[in-house]
Amino acid sequence: MRAARMHEYHKPLILEDVPVPDISAGEVLVKVTAAGMCRTDCQLVDGYFRKYADLPLPLTPGHEIAGTIEKIGSAVPKIAGFADGDQAVVVGGWGDDICRLCHEGNTQICVHGKWPGFSAYGGYSEYVLVPFQYLIKVDKSLNLKAEELAPMTDAGLTPYRGIKKLRDAGALGPGRLFGVFGVGGLGTYAVQYAKLLGGGATVVAFARNQAKLDTAKDLGADHVISTKGKSQDDIRAELKRATGQAELDAVIDCAGAPEMIQLGFSLLAPQAHYCSVGLVGDSISIPLFPFVAREYTYHGSFWGNYNDLAEVVALVQQGKIRHNLKVANFEEINENLELLRTGDILGRAVIKF
Amino acid sequence: MRAARMHEYHKPLILEDVPVPDISAGEVLVKVTAAGMCRTDCQLVDGYFRKYADLPLPLTPGHEIAGTIEKIGSAVPKIAGFADGDQAVVVGGWGDDICRLCHEGNTQICVHGKWPGFSAYGGYSEYVLVPFQYLIKVDKSLNLKAEELAPMTDAGLTPYRGIKKLRDAGALGPGRLFGVFGVGGLGTYAVQYAKLLGGGATVVAFARNQAKLDTAKDLGADHVISTKGKSQDDIRAELKRATGQAELDAVIDCAGAPEMIQLGFSLLAPQAHYCSVGLVGDSISIPLFPFVAREYTYHGSFWGNYNDLAEVVALVQQGKIRHNLKVANFEEINENLELLRTGDILGRAVIKF
Amino acid sequence: MRAARMHEYHKPLILEDVPVPDISAGEVLVKVTAAGMCRTDCQLVDGYFRKYADLPLPLTPGHEIAGTIEKIGSAVPKIAGFADGDQAVVVGGWGDDICRLCHEGNTQICVHGKWPGFSAYGGYSEYVLVPFQYLIKVDKSLNLKAEELAPMTDAGLTPYRGIKKLRDAGALGPGRLFGVFGVGGLGTYAVQYAKLLGGGATVVAFARNQAKLDTAKDLGADHVISTKGKSQDDIRAELKRATGQAELDAVIDCAGAPEMIQLGFSLLAPQAHYCSVGLVGDSISIPLFPFVAREYTYHGSFWGNYNDLAEVVALVQQGKIRHNLKVANFEEINENLELLRTGDILGRAVIKF
Amino acid sequence: MRAARMHEYHKPLILEDVPVPDISAGEVLVKVTAAGMCRTDCQLVDGYFRKYADLPLPLTPGHEIAGTIEKIGSAVPKIAGFADGDQAVVVGGWGDDICRLCHEGNTQICVHGKWPGFSAYGGYSEYVLVPFQYLIKVDKSLNLKAEELAPMTDAGLTPYRGIKKLRDAGALGPGRLFGVFGVGGLGTYAVQYAKLLGGGATVVAFARNQAKLDTAKDLGADHVISTKGKSQDDIRAELKRATGQAELDAVIDCAGAPEMIQLGFSLLAPQAHYCSVGLVGDSISIPLFPFVAREYTYHGSFWGNYNDLAEVVALVQQGKIRHNLKVANFEEINENLELLRTGDILGRAVIKF
Repeated sequence: MRAARMHEYHKPLILEDVPVPDISAGEVLVKVTAAGMCRTDCQLVDGYFRKYADLPLPLTPGHEIAGTIEKIGSAVPKIAGFADGDQAVVVGGWGDDICRLCHEGNTQICVHGKWPGFSAYGGYSEYVLVPFQYLIKVDKSLNLKAEELAPMTDAGLTPYRGIKKLRDAGALGPGRLFGVFGVGGLGTYAVQYAKLLGGGATVVAFARNQAKLDTAKDLGADHVISTKGKSQDDIRAELKRATGQAELDAVIDCAGAPEMIQLGFSLLAPQAHYCSVGLVGDSISIPLFPFVAREYTYHGSFWGNYNDLAEVVALVQQGKIRHNLKVANFEEINENLELLRTGDILGRAVIKF
Repeated sequence: MRAARMHEYHKPLILEDVPVPDISAGEVLVKVTAAGMCRTDCQLVDGYFRKYADLPLPLTPGHEIAGTIEKIGSAVPKIAGFADGDQAVVVGGWGDDICRLCHEGNTQICVHGKWPGFSAYGGYSEYVLVPFQYLIKVDKSLNLKAEELAPMTDAGLTPYRGIKKLRDAGALGPGRLFGVFGVGGLGTYAVQYAKLLGGGATVVAFARNQAKLDTAKDLGADHVISTKGKSQDDIRAELKRATGQAELDAVIDCAGAPEMIQLGFSLLAPQAHYCSVGLVGDSISIPLFPFVAREYTYHGSFWGNYNDLAEVVALVQQGKIRHNLKVANFEEINENLELLRTGDILGRAVIKF
Repeated sequence: MRAARMHEYHKPLILEDVPVPDISAGEVLVKVTAAGMCRTDCQLVDGYFRKYADLPLPLTPGHEIAGTIEKIGSAVPKIAGFADGDQAVVVGGWGDDICRLCHEGNTQICVHGKWPGFSAYGGYSEYVLVPFQYLIKVDKSLNLKAEELAPMTDAGLTPYRGIKKLRDAGALGPGRLFGVFGVGGLGTYAVQYAKLLGGGATVVAFARNQAKLDTAKDLGADHVISTKGKSQDDIRAELKRATGQAELDAVIDCAGAPEMIQLGFSLLAPQAHYCSVGLVGDSISIPLFPFVAREYTYHGSFWGNYNDLAEVVALVQQGKIRHNLKVANFEEINENLELLRTGDILGRAVIKF
Repeated sequence: MRAARMHEYHKPLILEDVPVPDISAGEVLVKVTAAGMCRTDCQLVDGYFRKYADLPLPLTPGHEIAGTIEKIGSAVPKIAGFADGDQAVVVGGWGDDICRLCHEGNTQICVHGKWPGFSAYGGYSEYVLVPFQYLIKVDKSLNLKAEELAPMTDAGLTPYRGIKKLRDAGALGPGRLFGVFGVGGLGTYAVQYAKLLGGGATVVAFARNQAKLDTAKDLGADHVISTKGKSQDDIRAELKRATGQAELDAVIDCAGAPEMIQLGFSLLAPQAHYCSVGLVGDSISIPLFPFVAREYTYHGSFWGNYNDLAEVVALVQQGKIRHNLKVANFEEINENLELLRTGDILGRAVIKF
């Protein structure tokens, strides 16, 4: 099968032929129909994660995977309801099945995790093997497009989990001001979840790029604010003019740039909740006194688990999610990685097979 | 001022002239512009609450109050922002300011509570005195109708609090089936909150009356099911046909009839949450084994507190709530109480001054 | 191997020889060293569950299992750290690995569950097979007694989960009055968890039997109240005398008798939480008005999951749990089931191999 | 009456005579019997808070107040049960009674708050006026010492609220490793709450000073680790040796020094919760990637509200709290402030009148 593999750090992927992997009893062989491209893939090539995990090379990137079921292992329970040809999406964070986190379903933060797209096999190839517990069937009768499903497994999943954390913490609801920071691959979905889960919260999108802000408005943001070239005071004043309130009750940060985090915390109301899902930067530097005296809560939220993705798929099946995609061919992977690196893609890039 | 007062149990209210009450330093005198009529008013006259509280007579019913600010006590803080002529709604459950429940804001369940509409003064009169902590200003510039505001203080508040409990318990979300039981005064609002707070849950309204079910559908219910003359098995089968699932993940019960509660629990999925806000009946009788073995959670939810009502007002001010009202004059109170008693009012009856 | 099997309802178990089951790749063969005896085993024989699940006969009861590892399947991950001869306890509620509940770790309420002790294999036999995900290793160096470990998998697990629900719901803490209902197999553990997780709550044990109340006092209950022959008013007055408060803020009900549930709800304070884990009766019959108007919350809690049991094992390993056991031989199973049925066992009966 | 007042920043307090303030209808005049001394008082004099709030001078510091009731305002409800001569403690964070935070009882984070000890009147004087809603009666029959009550209103309250946040977030329990950072005025109480609310968590105290670590051990810490002169790696290794685990599941940080925060986050396990209550430093600087990828949650927790203090008082009345105090006279305030500033007081300094 064709695969685009990373053999060295800081080098383009190599498109080559590799054998289709052998299936085990509890696995499903999935024919990849679309694979989303994530800024994380650039960071992987650029060595951002190297200090945290030393991954064996070569590896096949691609952790946003939609496909069709090609072969079903002998021990996969009938009750799973899988059949050859079924459309399915892949839960990407596989755990050790032993630790406390796995035993509550949060396999994506298991310290012994093994993930497609960060190991020998990934979405940038024609087939992947998936343990049956990490595969979610999609209703075939809806004829959903593969390129719209693939990004839901990360870009469309990660902000969903983060916003759920904010909602479950009681930070959303009528009269609350909810900021969405960053309107890229994740943020275009975040704006939609902010409305769907906000329970009446007023949603304000913040970004530097006007085209992205226009997208946010189109996707339902009540207000949008460009941060480009503006001081924290400017932005606070603009927020007040737009909404009548100068402070945010909740933030989902899909970017993660250090100055965005500083801006965000400078705008928080007492008892506000801030949730980081974006990883553009690598450090948090904020003042302590207001953090304590105003009782902020800061949540790290990572990707999503099986149930999170099942909920996202339910929303997609209900037709509640709109997409903002750039579809490309397998052969165009390297040039699109480059566009991702420079931030020159609106919405999400997806490789379609 | 004119007041409709209850002098005896099981007798019509007497419409008479009584003095306007004297204002204290921390109070606001409110000119009543509309007062919602609640089934509870019939139960009050009929003695339903007599075994729980022996209220001194005569009393003035009317606990759903909207009005305009007529006079402001000398100790009311400026920061409250009240001004003569402001439109406002009244939080009805006043507490003792001493107990744990009051100190967390849940004054409506304080055991030493004192409530307008269940004491000498109430909404069925031209003026009421309100401690400033229980008055919520409404944006005057929106020109909201008094008859649409009054019912929000109970009919529009009670299911909101109940549904918030379900949401905060994690019972709602995409892929979950959410039943609304009863589509009367409270239920017409419940259907709307089910969509607003459900985060993608599928909403199914259950009632006996087809006109009420039509209203529910019109207000956004995804499905409606008539329970009239049907067995539990019939209803389960109909639910399955309509939604693909035979069991509910959450129920908000705006009715409270014993057989409705039994039906509700017979339809629950494992880990389901059931919330009672309706008080038509007076007993709960359900099987223990599935309650334990399927880990049901059963929530009693009562009326709402200041912050709940402030959130409801925020939704109203955003134009997100639709009303289903029958407006009447002060002189028609007794005949409308009679219609309420027999269940012959669609939506909410409101007395307009 | 020897096994005590149920061939017919309402008949004694038959002690007989059956083959040791064959091990699969993901399983561990456990040599049973002790099996707790549960009132549920009597209910199983007596047909209590028959209307809910039609179990194929013959079956081997015994769902409270401690043992040593005899053989490890080829696909059991090394990271589990299992070795031949390790002491271990069995998580009893096995799920389908597919549903939402399993994917959050609550396998014990999975509707497709398969449980040792309610199927062909169970603890009343010399060996059982356990999927590796349901086996928890116990620190061998502590030399814990098998008969003290076995009951922790249900009698010592079930009230733990229930009390955790109460604690997580905010019902416990300093100044709160916490009732433990029933001081049998589960209740003797419940009293201890009430102190360990209560965070300063005052613990009051209620039972009919004075010997059981003495045990409760010995295990740390702050007060004990005999319910024998007393009215609800008597008991309320006694509670007030003993604690200065007439109402309970939380109840863990390890019994489940209908009149105990009625007593419990009659004693609740506003915002109280009641948690049922006991299944002696089969119905709940309580008044609706106080349930709603005082905002009670009623939790069903069932058995426990992997993480719950891991926490219980941690407490046992810390030496924080005391036991109240009656140890018996395999040959004495039927006579001890009879004693259980009549309520004539103090604490927990355990079969030791 | 005598009062120690701050007339200028960076100057000693001036001990002088000022008039006893006049009582209003809703207030209680409290004769101060003891006032705790807080590091915050030094920070107040040193101008730490000046950029956040411009307080009018002169002001009377002292926000940890115990006293006896001297006079009761005419509008104080009888149901409060106050009588002349009653012992009482003061809830220090008074709110505006208008905002959402006040309406949920969190008056201490109200943005319009007015606090004794940061305004004209405070605990460093013979009398203070207290609105009745902020006074908590202590059981007179227990003859508790004033100097043991006063510090409970901040030093004994602040870590209690913080640890409750950790517990309610699910971060504590058997098998979890719980770090207490700093064993000064707050930390000596934190260690005790860690055991009382930890539900079986293993408690490890971290500090630089060996005498403080000895105190922590004496108060129940399972392990203590000196951080003096050690690298993060050293400390991690020591933690692993002591407990078998190298990472903490929860931290209550009573210090707040920037390097302590860095140390803390470097030691966290996936899904760990960190709660800051200490304010020694003024900045947070930690890496983003593990924060997100391991799903940390960071809680700011500030002081405590009425119900928090009521719970703390309940623990004190049960005799569950031990104190570590240095009692001083009113005349010794300035020299003790100096000792506080240099960190040369073990436990809490209290002025006794």
